[in-house]
Amino acid sequence: MHFASDNWAGTHPRIADNLTRHAQGFAPAYGTSELDKAVEDRFSAIFEREVAVFFVATGTAANSLALASVAKAGGVSFCHADAHVNADEGGAPEFLTGATRLFGVEGAEGKIDPKALDKAIARFEPASPHHGRAMAVTVTQATEVGTVYSLDELDRLAAIAKSRDLPLHMDGARFANALVALDATPAEMTWKRGVDILSFGGTKNGCWCAEAIVFFNPEMAADLPFIRKRSAQLFSKSRFISAQLEAYLEDDLWLDLARHANSMADRLREGLASKNTARLAWETTANEVFAVIEKSSADRAREKGAKFYDWQPPHGWLPLPNENETLVRLVTSFATSEDEVDQFIEVV
Amino acid sequence: MHFASDNWAGTHPRIADNLTRHAQGFAPAYGTSELDKAVEDRFSAIFEREVAVFFVATGTAANSLALASVAKAGGVSFCHADAHVNADEGGAPEFLTGATRLFGVEGAEGKIDPKALDKAIARFEPASPHHGRAMAVTVTQATEVGTVYSLDELDRLAAIAKSRDLPLHMDGARFANALVALDATPAEMTWKRGVDILSFGGTKNGCWCAEAIVFFNPEMAADLPFIRKRSAQLFSKSRFISAQLEAYLEDDLWLDLARHANSMADRLREGLASKNTARLAWETTANEVFAVIEKSSADRAREKGAKFYDWQPPHGWLPLPNENETLVRLVTSFATSEDEVDQFIEVV
Amino acid sequence: MHFASDNWAGTHPRIADNLTRHAQGFAPAYGTSELDKAVEDRFSAIFEREVAVFFVATGTAANSLALASVAKAGGVSFCHADAHVNADEGGAPEFLTGATRLFGVEGAEGKIDPKALDKAIARFEPASPHHGRAMAVTVTQATEVGTVYSLDELDRLAAIAKSRDLPLHMDGARFANALVALDATPAEMTWKRGVDILSFGGTKNGCWCAEAIVFFNPEMAADLPFIRKRSAQLFSKSRFISAQLEAYLEDDLWLDLARHANSMADRLREGLASKNTARLAWETTANEVFAVIEKSSADRAREKGAKFYDWQPPHGWLPLPNENETLVRLVTSFATSEDEVDQFIEVV
Amino acid sequence: MHFASDNWAGTHPRIADNLTRHAQGFAPAYGTSELDKAVEDRFSAIFEREVAVFFVATGTAANSLALASVAKAGGVSFCHADAHVNADEGGAPEFLTGATRLFGVEGAEGKIDPKALDKAIARFEPASPHHGRAMAVTVTQATEVGTVYSLDELDRLAAIAKSRDLPLHMDGARFANALVALDATPAEMTWKRGVDILSFGGTKNGCWCAEAIVFFNPEMAADLPFIRKRSAQLFSKSRFISAQLEAYLEDDLWLDLARHANSMADRLREGLASKNTARLAWETTANEVFAVIEKSSADRAREKGAKFYDWQPPHGWLPLPNENETLVRLVTSFATSEDEVDQFIEVV
Repeated sequence: MHFASDNWAGTHPRIADNLTRHAQGFAPAYGTSELDKAVEDRFSAIFEREVAVFFVATGTAANSLALASVAKAGGVSFCHADAHVNADEGGAPEFLTGATRLFGVEGAEGKIDPKALDKAIARFEPASPHHGRAMAVTVTQATEVGTVYSLDELDRLAAIAKSRDLPLHMDGARFANALVALDATPAEMTWKRGVDILSFGGTKNGCWCAEAIVFFNPEMAADLPFIRKRSAQLFSKSRFISAQLEAYLEDDLWLDLARHANSMADRLREGLASKNTARLAWETTANEVFAVIEKSSADRAREKGAKFYDWQPPHGWLPLPNENETLVRLVTSFATSEDEVDQFIEVV
Repeated sequence: MHFASDNWAGTHPRIADNLTRHAQGFAPAYGTSELDKAVEDRFSAIFEREVAVFFVATGTAANSLALASVAKAGGVSFCHADAHVNADEGGAPEFLTGATRLFGVEGAEGKIDPKALDKAIARFEPASPHHGRAMAVTVTQATEVGTVYSLDELDRLAAIAKSRDLPLHMDGARFANALVALDATPAEMTWKRGVDILSFGGTKNGCWCAEAIVFFNPEMAADLPFIRKRSAQLFSKSRFISAQLEAYLEDDLWLDLARHANSMADRLREGLASKNTARLAWETTANEVFAVIEKSSADRAREKGAKFYDWQPPHGWLPLPNENETLVRLVTSFATSEDEVDQFIEVV
Repeated sequence: MHFASDNWAGTHPRIADNLTRHAQGFAPAYGTSELDKAVEDRFSAIFEREVAVFFVATGTAANSLALASVAKAGGVSFCHADAHVNADEGGAPEFLTGATRLFGVEGAEGKIDPKALDKAIARFEPASPHHGRAMAVTVTQATEVGTVYSLDELDRLAAIAKSRDLPLHMDGARFANALVALDATPAEMTWKRGVDILSFGGTKNGCWCAEAIVFFNPEMAADLPFIRKRSAQLFSKSRFISAQLEAYLEDDLWLDLARHANSMADRLREGLASKNTARLAWETTANEVFAVIEKSSADRAREKGAKFYDWQPPHGWLPLPNENETLVRLVTSFATSEDEVDQFIEVV
Repeated sequence: MHFASDNWAGTHPRIADNLTRHAQGFAPAYGTSELDKAVEDRFSAIFEREVAVFFVATGTAANSLALASVAKAGGVSFCHADAHVNADEGGAPEFLTGATRLFGVEGAEGKIDPKALDKAIARFEPASPHHGRAMAVTVTQATEVGTVYSLDELDRLAAIAKSRDLPLHMDGARFANALVALDATPAEMTWKRGVDILSFGGTKNGCWCAEAIVFFNPEMAADLPFIRKRSAQLFSKSRFISAQLEAYLEDDLWLDLARHANSMADRLREGLASKNTARLAWETTANEVFAVIEKSSADRAREKGAKFYDWQPPHGWLPLPNENETLVRLVTSFATSEDEVDQFIEVV
C-alpha cells in the first residue's frame, strides 16, 4: 500500500527496456546524439510547435533553470505560497537564479488567486530598485494539493502576467496527470494559454530520471546551454534521458500511465468518501488525495504496511476541529494497483 | 573506431540489467532507500573506512559541490591550469561554490608542479582580504592528459596542502583507470595519501550516470545535504544511481572495465609508436592517448569513420614543428574492441 | 516642512567639522589607521564589552553582511514581514549572503510576534534539506513603523532564537532613536538581551555616511574582512567614516540628536492628536509618526511645501474606512525644527 | 615621506569645504537631489556626450558593477594578469557579477598584449558551454604599474573587443593621472577609443570617497539601478558624493591635482635615476614609480619615516639579479610635496 509519493515508484518496463536497448554502441555526448535530436523533434510534434528542449537531472533543476533563463537583478517571481518551488526546493530556485526572490501568493485549493496575484505584482513598481522588480509568474499544474487549473483559470493568470510583460512558467512535475484530468492537448494546456516555459516532468510518472525544460519560443532559450552547464546539469551520456523519453512518449504511454494513476486516485476518493473514519480534505482531480482521517485509523493502516505522509496544512487552512484527526496525503502512481487501493480503504 | 571520448560509450550490460532488475517495486525517495544505504556501505568497505557518499548528476557537479563544501568568502582553489575543473566546466565550480575562484598552477604532464603550487598558495596571505585566501587544492587522477600521479607525487602535493591547512580534493572522473594503472587500492590512492574528498566517477567507465562525492571524514559532509539540494542535485529516484553502482562495484566489475580500457590504450600506444605517420605526444598510462599525426592521416582516418578530437595543446607546450601535423586525443573505454584499435592503427 | 525621511537631512555641523579637521595629512588605508582603531575602541567602551566593528557604505550593506557572516547553504532568516530587510533592500540580503532566504513573520505594530516566530522556525526541520534550515533571527529597533521593542519583548524573541541555536541580529538603522525612547544603555538594548550582531546606523541621525556592523563576540567576525571585501564594501579612506563617528559619539552627541528627533515627533504626535482632520494611525515612540489624514489636508500641506510620503499599509492593516483619507508617514530628524512641526500642524 | 599609496592622502580643502557647504538643509535621498543631477550633467559636459552616471562606495564596486552590467551565464572577462580587478579585489568582481570569471592576459609594462588578448578570447568558442564565453575586456588606465596606454594602444585593444562584439571597460582608478599624462581629453581617452563603460575614480586624487560608473551609452545602464541596489551600493545621502565631485570637477581641480601628483612622480623618477643605490625598475609616466633599491637603503629610508611597500614582481618579471636589492612601489598624490620627494631621494 504505497501512497507516500509517486517518486517511490520504479520505472515502467517499456522505459527500462528502452534504456537497455540503447545501452550498446557509441554516440556523441552532451546532448548531441541522433537520439537526443529525435526526442527533441518528438517534443515539437507533441506540442504542435517548434520548441527548444533541455534535459536536466531533477524537477527542482527544471524549475530553477527555467526561472534563471528570465532572471534579472532584483528579480521577484510570483508563485503560490504553497508551491513546491517556494516550499520544498531547499533554496535552489533562489540560488540557481543568482539570488532572485520568490513571492508566495495566496489562493484557495493550491491555486494562485488572480486578484491576489495582481495586487502582489503591483507592490513592485517597475522603476524602483528598492523593492525589486517582477520577473516571472510560475504556476504548478497539477498543483501541489492535487487540484488542476482549468484552462480558463490559466487564461486569467496568463492575462495578468502578459499585462505586466512577465513570462509565465509552468511547473509540470505532474504535467501528464493534469493533462488527462482536463482532457486537453499539451498545446492547449501550455502555449495556447500563454505559458512560455514548461518544466516537463517524467520521473514521477514512470521514468526513473527524465525532466526537461521546454521553451515555446526557442529564442528565449539562447542562454540556457550556458545556464545549464554552469549549474552542472548537462549530462554527458544524455542519450539515456532521451531513451527514457522515447519510450515514455511513444504510443501515448505517458498519457496511459497518468490515466491509470488518476483513476487509482478516483478509486481512492470514492472509497474514502464512503467511510466514516475518514473524509476528503478537499476535492482533487489528479493523482493526489488529501484526507482527514482518525489518528487511530492512520496508525492502524501504517501497522498494516501502508505508506503515506501526514501533511502540513496549506496556507489559510483552518485548524482541524478534532484532535483525534490528522491530515494525510495519499499519492497514486502508474504502479499503483486496484488491490492496494482496496486494501487501504478496508484498513483505514 | 570510437576514440572521441569515453563518454560516447554506452552502459555495460550488467549495469543495464541491474537497472531493470530494480525497476519494479516501491522504495523511499531522495537517497533513503535500503539499496542506497547498501551501496553507501559498499563504498565504506571498498575504501576500508567509514565514508559519507553523495550521488550527483554529473562529474562537474561532484567537483563543484566538493569544493562548495569547503568554500569560504574570498576563497581560492588551486588546480592544474589545464584541469577539467578550470577549463571545461563552464564556470560551474565558481557558480556552485558561491563565486570562489580557481587558480591554475603549471606543471608538466598535466600534473601540478609542487614548487609552483607552493609559490601560488604563498601569494595569498591568510590575513589579507585583498587577494583572497587559499581554500583547497584539487588534483585530477588520472589527469586530463592521460597521465597518472604516482603515490609519491600525491604525497608531495598533500604535504603542501596540509602544511597550509588546506583540504585536498581529487577529481576522479577516471578514478578506476588511475587505480589499475597504479595497481593501488582505493584507500592507498586517496585518504592514505591525504585526500579529503573524492569525486568518484562511474559514468565514463560503463555506467550511464553515476557520480558520487566521497568524504573520508564524514563530519566534513555536514552541510552537503543542503548544498546538494540548493544545487538541484538530489535525485528523487536515487535508487537507480545505486542500482548502477551496485553492479559496477560487484565482483570488481569497475576494475575489470578500467583494465580493459587501459589495455586498449596500451595497444593504441604500441601501435602508434610503430608508425611513422604518427608519434605519441607524451607518455600516458591511463585510457587516454595523445598523438601527433599527419593531418592527411587524420583526415583519412576520419573518412574511414574514426572519431576523435583535435586537441588544444596544454600550457607550456611548444608549437608543433610541422604545419602538416596535428595533435589529437584518443580515448578508449570499457567498450573499445581490439579490432577498433587495430583498424585505426592500420588506417592512420 | 521636511518629513519625507530622516535621510533627507544633511550632516550635523560638528560631524562636518570633524571631517574637515581630518582632511589633511596621511594615514594608512583600508581601516588600519589610528583613528579607525580609536573609534573601534570607543565602540567597545560604549557597549561595555570588547566588540569587533566593521564600517560599510549603507544600512543595507550592514544588514546584508551581518547575515552573510552567519549564512549557510539553504539558510532562512526570520524577520518581520514588513522589515526593511525584507521589503526595501532590493534583494541585497539575499544576494550578498549567497542566495539565502528571508521569511517574513507577522506581528502587530511592526514587531515580530513571538508565537508566530516560533511556529515559523518550526516549519524548517533542522535535518531536512527540502525546506531549508533556520539561520538567523533579525529584528529592527526602532521598527519600520515607529514603534520600539521593549527590553522584555527583545528577551522573548532572543529566548526563541537561543532555544533554536540561532544568532540574533538587530537592524539598528534608528538605533539611537530607540535607545533614548527606552532610556536604556547600548549594552542593555543589545548583548544583554541576547543580540549577537548589530547594524549600527549613524547616517539617518546626522552623519552623512556612517554605518557599522558590530559583533558582540569578535570571534564570530572572523570571516567578515573577506565577506566585506568580496562585497566591495571596504573603504580605502576608511578614516573618514571614523572621523564622522568620532564626532558623533563624542559627548553623547548621537543621543542628543536622537532625543531631539524623538521630541520633534512627540510634538507632531501631540499636534496631530489635537486635530480633527487627522489622527494617529497607531502609537509610535521613536522619530516616525504615522497618521491618517484627509486627502484634501494632505494636498494642502503639500501645496504649502510639506514633504512626506503616502504609506503602503502594513500587513494585517484593515482598509481605511474612508476613501477621502490617506495613510502618511512623517519622519523627524536631528535637523527638524519646532517651527516646521508647528507649521505643519497648522496647515494640515 | 608618504609614498605608500595615494589612498593614504586625505581630502583636498576645496572638496572638504564643499562637503561642509552642503551639510545643511534637506534634499531627496538615493541620488535624486538637484545636486546629484547637476553633477551628472557635469559628467555629460566633460565627456562631450550624454552619459549615465552611478555613484558607488569603492573602486572595487565600480569595477565589479560595471562588469555585472554586462554579465552572462558562463561569462569570462579578459584583463591583464596583474590587473587590480584580478589580483587585489578579493573576489568581488566574481561575486558581484554572479560568479563570472576573469581571465588574466599577459603583456609587458602592465598592458594587455593585443595578440595575447586575441588568442585568449579565441579559446572560448562562442557556442560551446563547456569553456564559458567571452563577456568583456577590461583595461586599467593608468595601469597598476604606473604606465599609461597610448591612444593607439587603446585603439588596438578596442578593435579586438569590437571584432568579438565585446564591451570594453576601463578601470579609471587613476583616470585623471592618465589623462594629464597623455594630454588627452576625457572623450578622447574613452568613448572615442571604443570604451563603453568607465570606472571613474576620484578617491585617490583628492576626494575622500567618490567613485562613479559612467556609461557612454545610457541604454546599456538600464539594469544598473537594480544591480547597484542588490549590491548595497546605493547611498541614501548620495548628495555628499555629488558635493565632492562638484568641487572636484570645478575649474579643472581634478586635472590640476593629477598634474601635481604626476609631476611629483617625475621629480622622484629624476631623483632616483641620479642615484647609484637605486634604479627605476621600468619606465612609468603616471603617479607611480617602481624602483629597485638596495635593501639597506630601503631600511634606512623606513627608519627615517618613509612609507612605501615592497612590491610583488609582475608576471614575467625576471628575478632580481642581486639578493641585496628589493623592488618597491612609490606612489605620489595631490598631497605630496617637493620636500617629501627631495628628502626621500636624499635618504635612499
